[in-house]
Amino acid sequence: MQYRIEKDTMGEVKVPQDKLWGAQTERSRNNFKIGRPASMPLEIVYGFAYLKKAAAYTNCDAGILTEEKRDLIAAVCDEILDGKHDDQFPLVIWQTGSGTQSNMNVNEVIANRAHQLAGKTIGEGEKTLQPNDDVNKSQSSNDTFPTGMHIAAYKKLLEVTIPGVEQLHATLEKKSKEFSTCVKIGRTHLMDATPLTLGQEFSGYASQLEHGLIALKNTLAHLSELALGGTAVGTGINTPKGYASTVAKYIAQFTELPFITAHNKFEALAAHDAIVESHGALKQLAVSLNKIANDIRLLASGPRSGIGEITIPANEPGSSIMPGKVNPTQCEALTMVCAQVIGNDMAIAVGGMQGHYELNVFKPVMAANFLESAQLLGDACVSFDEHCAKGIKPNKEVIEKQLNNSLMLVTALNTKIGYYKAAEIANTAHKNGTTLKEEAVNLGYLTAEEFDAWVKPEDMV
Amino acid sequence: MQYRIEKDTMGEVKVPQDKLWGAQTERSRNNFKIGRPASMPLEIVYGFAYLKKAAAYTNCDAGILTEEKRDLIAAVCDEILDGKHDDQFPLVIWQTGSGTQSNMNVNEVIANRAHQLAGKTIGEGEKTLQPNDDVNKSQSSNDTFPTGMHIAAYKKLLEVTIPGVEQLHATLEKKSKEFSTCVKIGRTHLMDATPLTLGQEFSGYASQLEHGLIALKNTLAHLSELALGGTAVGTGINTPKGYASTVAKYIAQFTELPFITAHNKFEALAAHDAIVESHGALKQLAVSLNKIANDIRLLASGPRSGIGEITIPANEPGSSIMPGKVNPTQCEALTMVCAQVIGNDMAIAVGGMQGHYELNVFKPVMAANFLESAQLLGDACVSFDEHCAKGIKPNKEVIEKQLNNSLMLVTALNTKIGYYKAAEIANTAHKNGTTLKEEAVNLGYLTAEEFDAWVKPEDMV
Amino acid sequence: MQYRIEKDTMGEVKVPQDKLWGAQTERSRNNFKIGRPASMPLEIVYGFAYLKKAAAYTNCDAGILTEEKRDLIAAVCDEILDGKHDDQFPLVIWQTGSGTQSNMNVNEVIANRAHQLAGKTIGEGEKTLQPNDDVNKSQSSNDTFPTGMHIAAYKKLLEVTIPGVEQLHATLEKKSKEFSTCVKIGRTHLMDATPLTLGQEFSGYASQLEHGLIALKNTLAHLSELALGGTAVGTGINTPKGYASTVAKYIAQFTELPFITAHNKFEALAAHDAIVESHGALKQLAVSLNKIANDIRLLASGPRSGIGEITIPANEPGSSIMPGKVNPTQCEALTMVCAQVIGNDMAIAVGGMQGHYELNVFKPVMAANFLESAQLLGDACVSFDEHCAKGIKPNKEVIEKQLNNSLMLVTALNTKIGYYKAAEIANTAHKNGTTLKEEAVNLGYLTAEEFDAWVKPEDMV
Amino acid sequence: MQYRIEKDTMGEVKVPQDKLWGAQTERSRNNFKIGRPASMPLEIVYGFAYLKKAAAYTNCDAGILTEEKRDLIAAVCDEILDGKHDDQFPLVIWQTGSGTQSNMNVNEVIANRAHQLAGKTIGEGEKTLQPNDDVNKSQSSNDTFPTGMHIAAYKKLLEVTIPGVEQLHATLEKKSKEFSTCVKIGRTHLMDATPLTLGQEFSGYASQLEHGLIALKNTLAHLSELALGGTAVGTGINTPKGYASTVAKYIAQFTELPFITAHNKFEALAAHDAIVESHGALKQLAVSLNKIANDIRLLASGPRSGIGEITIPANEPGSSIMPGKVNPTQCEALTMVCAQVIGNDMAIAVGGMQGHYELNVFKPVMAANFLESAQLLGDACVSFDEHCAKGIKPNKEVIEKQLNNSLMLVTALNTKIGYYKAAEIANTAHKNGTTLKEEAVNLGYLTAEEFDAWVKPEDMV
Repeated sequence: MQYRIEKDTMGEVKVPQDKLWGAQTERSRNNFKIGRPASMPLEIVYGFAYLKKAAAYTNCDAGILTEEKRDLIAAVCDEILDGKHDDQFPLVIWQTGSGTQSNMNVNEVIANRAHQLAGKTIGEGEKTLQPNDDVNKSQSSNDTFPTGMHIAAYKKLLEVTIPGVEQLHATLEKKSKEFSTCVKIGRTHLMDATPLTLGQEFSGYASQLEHGLIALKNTLAHLSELALGGTAVGTGINTPKGYASTVAKYIAQFTELPFITAHNKFEALAAHDAIVESHGALKQLAVSLNKIANDIRLLASGPRSGIGEITIPANEPGSSIMPGKVNPTQCEALTMVCAQVIGNDMAIAVGGMQGHYELNVFKPVMAANFLESAQLLGDACVSFDEHCAKGIKPNKEVIEKQLNNSLMLVTALNTKIGYYKAAEIANTAHKNGTTLKEEAVNLGYLTAEEFDAWVKPEDMV
Repeated sequence: MQYRIEKDTMGEVKVPQDKLWGAQTERSRNNFKIGRPASMPLEIVYGFAYLKKAAAYTNCDAGILTEEKRDLIAAVCDEILDGKHDDQFPLVIWQTGSGTQSNMNVNEVIANRAHQLAGKTIGEGEKTLQPNDDVNKSQSSNDTFPTGMHIAAYKKLLEVTIPGVEQLHATLEKKSKEFSTCVKIGRTHLMDATPLTLGQEFSGYASQLEHGLIALKNTLAHLSELALGGTAVGTGINTPKGYASTVAKYIAQFTELPFITAHNKFEALAAHDAIVESHGALKQLAVSLNKIANDIRLLASGPRSGIGEITIPANEPGSSIMPGKVNPTQCEALTMVCAQVIGNDMAIAVGGMQGHYELNVFKPVMAANFLESAQLLGDACVSFDEHCAKGIKPNKEVIEKQLNNSLMLVTALNTKIGYYKAAEIANTAHKNGTTLKEEAVNLGYLTAEEFDAWVKPEDMV
Repeated sequence: MQYRIEKDTMGEVKVPQDKLWGAQTERSRNNFKIGRPASMPLEIVYGFAYLKKAAAYTNCDAGILTEEKRDLIAAVCDEILDGKHDDQFPLVIWQTGSGTQSNMNVNEVIANRAHQLAGKTIGEGEKTLQPNDDVNKSQSSNDTFPTGMHIAAYKKLLEVTIPGVEQLHATLEKKSKEFSTCVKIGRTHLMDATPLTLGQEFSGYASQLEHGLIALKNTLAHLSELALGGTAVGTGINTPKGYASTVAKYIAQFTELPFITAHNKFEALAAHDAIVESHGALKQLAVSLNKIANDIRLLASGPRSGIGEITIPANEPGSSIMPGKVNPTQCEALTMVCAQVIGNDMAIAVGGMQGHYELNVFKPVMAANFLESAQLLGDACVSFDEHCAKGIKPNKEVIEKQLNNSLMLVTALNTKIGYYKAAEIANTAHKNGTTLKEEAVNLGYLTAEEFDAWVKPEDMV
Repeated sequence: MQYRIEKDTMGEVKVPQDKLWGAQTERSRNNFKIGRPASMPLEIVYGFAYLKKAAAYTNCDAGILTEEKRDLIAAVCDEILDGKHDDQFPLVIWQTGSGTQSNMNVNEVIANRAHQLAGKTIGEGEKTLQPNDDVNKSQSSNDTFPTGMHIAAYKKLLEVTIPGVEQLHATLEKKSKEFSTCVKIGRTHLMDATPLTLGQEFSGYASQLEHGLIALKNTLAHLSELALGGTAVGTGINTPKGYASTVAKYIAQFTELPFITAHNKFEALAAHDAIVESHGALKQLAVSLNKIANDIRLLASGPRSGIGEITIPANEPGSSIMPGKVNPTQCEALTMVCAQVIGNDMAIAVGGMQGHYELNVFKPVMAANFLESAQLLGDACVSFDEHCAKGIKPNKEVIEKQLNNSLMLVTALNTKIGYYKAAEIANTAHKNGTTLKEEAVNLGYLTAEEFDAWVKPEDMV
């Protein structure tokens, strides 16, 4: 491999010739060989691209950066956002906890790429842009990383998580209406109980997601607060007047999202409670989805010796010899995602609680876990929706058989023949393994016609 | 001990003569000898008292309960709420997961006590009230327990948690103002950084709690939804028309809190996402408080070989031989509470995710963990506030010494003598263990007077 | 209430006349009003009683405590261990994180009670024993609390947890043998699969607990290491020569458990990884038990519309109108305990990870969560065993019906009539809702007699 | 892109021409678009390669697979283990919870590659090997995936985690000896306490890791048990006699690791407590490492206004203007890893607790979290060791200054001049901000020479 020499204040570093990054990125690659390479989420890099562009505009407006430099920075940021430099960000999550090295990675790539855009060759001639002095102007890792993190998190929620959950919610709501007349046996403690409609059962699932979406949206306000402008410790040292609010406006403009400058910059650097808060809502969704997916696989279990009240689509070959063995694979993928999200919630809490003084240095691990959860939940909801929920059908034969078999329907007779006779009917049917109707008639307490007229599950829902 | 005989559908049970409970409570005591006796929180019992009274009023309004019975039920509920029967609820958390046995415990106590109020002797004569038919009328364990749980949780947040956090928040805000001119060294990565005021540092703490309170209050809407009226499976079987909304209104009236009937009763029985949601906010507060308390004990560390920038009150004898050893005991109690709350969050998630069909049977464990967290956080904030936060004082001598010692102040000279000379000053001072001022003068780059005029930490915050 | 005046180095404190504790306990009561009073587990106090007695003996042997004082201390410790002073330990978990105040509580109670045993009146005359100089001689809170914690934890595991789990394990093993010929349908992905015996199913449960017990016992070695002798920071300052190993021997003798002195006292004060390690095994048991209890309630579900392959004992009245509704209440209690233990594991991890320098100050919260988990798991296993597991019976009719209904049995025909004809039989039966036998005969591929001879589930297990 | 047609029992699927996988892999790619592509860890694939080869040998020995087929399977497995087909495994963690599709992915790749090795073109001519009938012979996803998981986990622990932790442990032990005469102030509650040596402090860290390694090794026995031979539900249906133990022997031979066949196959499919158990030990190590790394950054904090008792290597440019600002970046990376591992522990517990009947369907999420934790811990320990621990040096000047400043040394005078005079000296020094020696002499209680002779910190450790 060909190398070029890059320098920083500690001296020279060999960098692969074809890479846009510089000395500090390369040092980080060498110093942090931990886990999968390039594990730092690209979404964070994109968040940086927005903020670097916004900072350039704000610095230019304040008269401390030329229009030429602003436009060069903006041009590279746009290229990054177009995905043209995805392979230029090789760093891992497990670096310095302020994400300094990823900030420098972005600064170095922007500076070197700008040099190219200015028609020059990297490593030759005077630098078109200084990574620190120009690209990082009026910034610190300490306020850029949390800003990039909030931009990435907010966008991911809006673009992936919320639409995914809403898509599944819409299907569950639709199913709830579609199944509104399908009366079935209820189950509490996993035991037979009074009837309800399959639609009512699904309405509960829809309602869980509705509440979950409200909870998630409630957290967006905190997440919309950006640390940028706090610089090193929150005081905003080395920023021009009005910088913090202007840069937030530019970010809002570029992302088309309602970002604002953080109410308190000291919090914004030293704590990431907004990430904790918002991920708490993701965890809540995971708790809901685990219940829903688990119910659906239980309802679809069988084909002969399970509950079997619904059927779900067969997406893959089940056993070649075993017709009807449609494994609830989408339920399984979704519940695995839920387990991951619940675990991630703890990783985030553990990181969030351990800030020191003016800086929390668990930023990358918090960001990475957040983005993973947000992506997985959104994707898994879509996958579950398209390959499972949409295709759910009631197995009416089974549903009716189990409903009519149910001893619980006897409650409908209480007002007609009294509690004691009703109980006697139920007890006898249970003992003999017969139906309520048979025993009701056998015991001579009512006729078959009366039974049919009085015991109507559809009136019990 | 004297016993009387109580009966239920399974037969006779011996109950201590002086106890108001009946057969089902006694069975539960015998069947669930798990952990500390009477661990079911009394707050849940009080929640039941509100809802039993409200149900009695609603049933009476609907013409299915006599005014006499209503008044008897209400009278006993008021006694329970007055704390007169606290020793009549001996059951544990670790019972049936629907809390059925605690519901029956309340029903039995109300019925037996009503018998006494009616001038009779328990166990003698016709029962004045039937625990099931009268006290539990239009109810099921499945909707009463989650209702009692929401009432208890909501009240605890409003009466203990929120006031406690607000009290501490007010002190931190006050300190933030009080310390607004106290310039001190900042620290990032635990390393010396540019200055800020002690007030700014405390403003970050206050801001964390402010955001936490908003997050917590955001969850109250979900928690205000009551399951009552869903009865066995959510369909509301065996309730009179309009029951659900009326009973919620009565509960709102009796508790003076804005409870409403749940939008979806199927969710309200089968999932307790409201508890998950609200406890997520408690966990967020724990994360914030852990950071705050940890910072404070670090800032107060010493007296000689720590950071020592603040002093905290001495509440207990430190070492008898060791003056100035003021252990940060309130910080320790508070951070231990935070650890507990973070653990409880996981217990609640694990319970919340495992509902089956029409019923979640982790109700008691979810409720107990919620109430513990809410109580501990509120109490610990008050304790921390009164015995620590209120008494925090800056140790100005130390603060000034460390500030003036700081090499970081050199940044103020960049614009005066240029970056390279400034760096040389800092490097020399670091190497020699001297001050910036000394070396600035030694190196001949500026006079002592110029140094004092130009290097003003108060201008850097 | 009557009070007497007690003094410490901070001055005078009013203490209730009838209490044995002194000034520092009383200060702690006033300074830490957090949560339920007296929440510090009594088991810790008993652990202290063992170690105080052992320290007195060791100090006496070393010639620094008189025999008279030693015997007085030992006498009070024995009274404490007999449970005679349980109401003299009013402090909470949420105190100083070293447990200093509980150490002083024990010291004060021993000193004051010794004064009584010496025939004097508390508060009058010269103190028979000094809480610090005599009772706490050669000790520090920093080494006593973790010692008391290990004694309590080890004893709880041996006396409650392990016997409880072993009792349940024995029943599951017994059931496994009892059900060894009961062939039933297997289920994977919750879907019908090839058969196994009910005994094999239960053997998996037994094996889980067997592995769990091994894992738990593996942790005892670390837990047997005692911090005592480390005193303030681990160096053992202020202890006589040989103290650490002698005091551990006395503790081993008094508790009849194989305690040894910790290999490294610095770890023993500054970290409680032994608690983390051992609770990890409790969490593993919770994971196992959750699976087992959940399976059992699924297998017992019904009575008509569930799986219904086993029956479990009816311990409480189910629905009065609903015969056969035996709620799996013991499964519910046990799985709630599992949720708690999993949460506690996180509380312990959060405490364990946050030690600073020479001391971890999350001792009480770690100890309390450990003891709760150990107690709950042991108790819940016994409760589950006695009220559920022992009474489990196969529902042979259902098992056979589901087995014979199973389409999965067709695999037995592959070698007789070839894969394609076998698949045709299965597919036809699935489509028509008939049995394999019916369709095998209908399709003319084999006779009913051949079917019975060839399709033998008992040969497939 | 060019495609070829592959078939399975559900019909035809288009597969990219240049890929070795078949229809079922392609279906999975389309059905599970969740998160990062190809997230299923390659280590699992390698585990499969070992077991497929072992199964081929065992089947051949049993006379049910030809030597030719055995050798073809083995040849492809060896290629996979050489990393030649890493890009042929595109599936994600979030698929069916039994990992069936990854099992099929391996089967398909082996079959297609064998076809190539046999000199043919994929998709043309009769298949050289059938993915199901030959490659998967005597196997099921249900027993292969957990086998692959255990192989991968065991290897990762032995090859990455344990060596990594041992490397760091060795350095800490070495430092402990190196610093054995460096007396410094101790700190409890973050407050100044009696002295110890820096070596003693580091011995505590080493001891934590030593205990952690023992705990981790204790879990290997459970992890060495392989599910293979259990096939679909644990009964071993469709395996030749003696298959389970022979195949385990072959795996042991090929991996050179002491694998054995699982004692109970029903557990081995339905529960993954071995993963829970072993990850519990990883979590314990995370708890330990978090404490150690946090202590080290606290000890290294400064350069002027922190504790500053040790220096750590400067690996990256700190602030260009701020000499001596060496950020503890390795501590930060390591503590972030600890946060992740603690979170992963919860994801694994949540997966482990939710098995149903004969199968746990959280296999991939459990495996992936385990492998991530094991890799991260091992890597982070090496990184921390090489870039931080090895370069730790005591800052003797600071250590001595803080030691000599300490008021706690006064305890050495108790036996010389009595407790009260000693306390007076300490109090006066604290009040005046002076040294003990100054005040001792000022108060006339001893001479400077006596002070030096009597107050020797090195005698207090």
